[in-house]
Amino acid sequence: MESLFSKVKCIAFDADDTLWVNEPYFRKAEEEYCAVLERFAGREEIIDTLYGIEMKNLAPYGYGAKAFTLSLMETAILFSNKSAVPPLTPSEMLRIIEIGTSLINIPMEILPGVEEVLEDLSGSGKYTLVVATKGDLLDQQRKLERSGLAKYFHHIEVMSNKDEAAFSRLLEHLGCRNDEFLMIGNSMKSDILPVLNIGGNAIYIPFHSTWEHEKVDGEVQHPNLYECNSCTELRTSVPLQSL
Amino acid sequence: MESLFSKVKCIAFDADDTLWVNEPYFRKAEEEYCAVLERFAGREEIIDTLYGIEMKNLAPYGYGAKAFTLSLMETAILFSNKSAVPPLTPSEMLRIIEIGTSLINIPMEILPGVEEVLEDLSGSGKYTLVVATKGDLLDQQRKLERSGLAKYFHHIEVMSNKDEAAFSRLLEHLGCRNDEFLMIGNSMKSDILPVLNIGGNAIYIPFHSTWEHEKVDGEVQHPNLYECNSCTELRTSVPLQSL
Repeated sequence: MESLFSKVKCIAFDADDTLWVNEPYFRKAEEEYCAVLERFAGREEIIDTLYGIEMKNLAPYGYGAKAFTLSLMETAILFSNKSAVPPLTPSEMLRIIEIGTSLINIPMEILPGVEEVLEDLSGSGKYTLVVATKGDLLDQQRKLERSGLAKYFHHIEVMSNKDEAAFSRLLEHLGCRNDEFLMIGNSMKSDILPVLNIGGNAIYIPFHSTWEHEKVDGEVQHPNLYECNSCTELRTSVPLQSL
Repeated sequence: MESLFSKVKCIAFDADDTLWVNEPYFRKAEEEYCAVLERFAGREEIIDTLYGIEMKNLAPYGYGAKAFTLSLMETAILFSNKSAVPPLTPSEMLRIIEIGTSLINIPMEILPGVEEVLEDLSGSGKYTLVVATKGDLLDQQRKLERSGLAKYFHHIEVMSNKDEAAFSRLLEHLGCRNDEFLMIGNSMKSDILPVLNIGGNAIYIPFHSTWEHEKVDGEVQHPNLYECNSCTELRTSVPLQSL
């Protein structure tokens, strides 16, 4: 580890499910949504259809609570229109909007060890710390403010996608060489693989709940990749101070 | 003008209705929307109510087509629920979503003189040119790409708000002194006043259609403010090459 990250100058953290809990709130919202639509279809069919609509809408809408709400509504209308039971009512539509937009204001639960790791890294004065996240600019800025973690970061980079090209632009913007960059995140697909592919370093901290879209098959091994179970473990198992 | 802008090093352009046509598409969408809701209320009442809902939602949702669509839906449900006529149907709701989200893909109509002014400024090699815009990150990045104007700009700054604090952060980020900064835009409230208030320079180019929220009362005069009717006029009436 010491040699692996000895050149690192800039460390980027993913936000949702790396710094704080996010995905479980989306899953809970889906359960509430399935309850509203229960006269149209079963839970599994609704979840599957919703996922298809979300993927269709990912390019035009992007990520975040507003995009999610629009997909919830479109899916509900689809089920209502093909069903023989009484159609979706305006009050049910309003309930769906409430379920979706409630995700803008989820409680901020900082994940274990995060604050301590940020304190260590920030205190060392050796690194530029940034947040690199997908999602909606306003949602993510707000969550960072509400989390109380904003003070540790130089700034927040809201990326409309996390692929090799987007990380290359980020590094150019940060004035950071690829091998001086370290990304810490919970998505192998979005946080880890593109960074390794452009010669950067990565720490993968899986979260118990991962959105279908962020999953990858098989195990990934790479000399510039370190994996651990939590920021608490990262702190004890890695000589962070000598990063 | 020459002395006014002699110190300028960084020039920021607003996007919507400064670089390209935007507001008329929102107004056209509102007309289509009023047609869908015509059995519930008259045009004026719908427009007024929608504006109230948009203002209520501005803090949680921010700007852009997705936020606008959510406000369209909420307003429609409000009218449906308080009306004695048959309620909003799922198909009408889908039509409303289509009207709102169509704004993500508006045709890009570059305003007169814009490309020539950008060519002049960019060609001089004296200025860092950026786009400074409110709105949705993904929407605005896409529009800039589709406009063909991206090549003239160092980058795009999507600001969740345009007030003095936000412009101060932008200037710090750009490494630009306040009196070295020039903002060009069509909103007196968002583009011009906050920049003048922090000691920057501004060129106001009004657009024929302005959203209610962006309007200010009275005339503004300031030694660091220049006003003209179009980028075409800006080009001929101002010695841009000696900016």
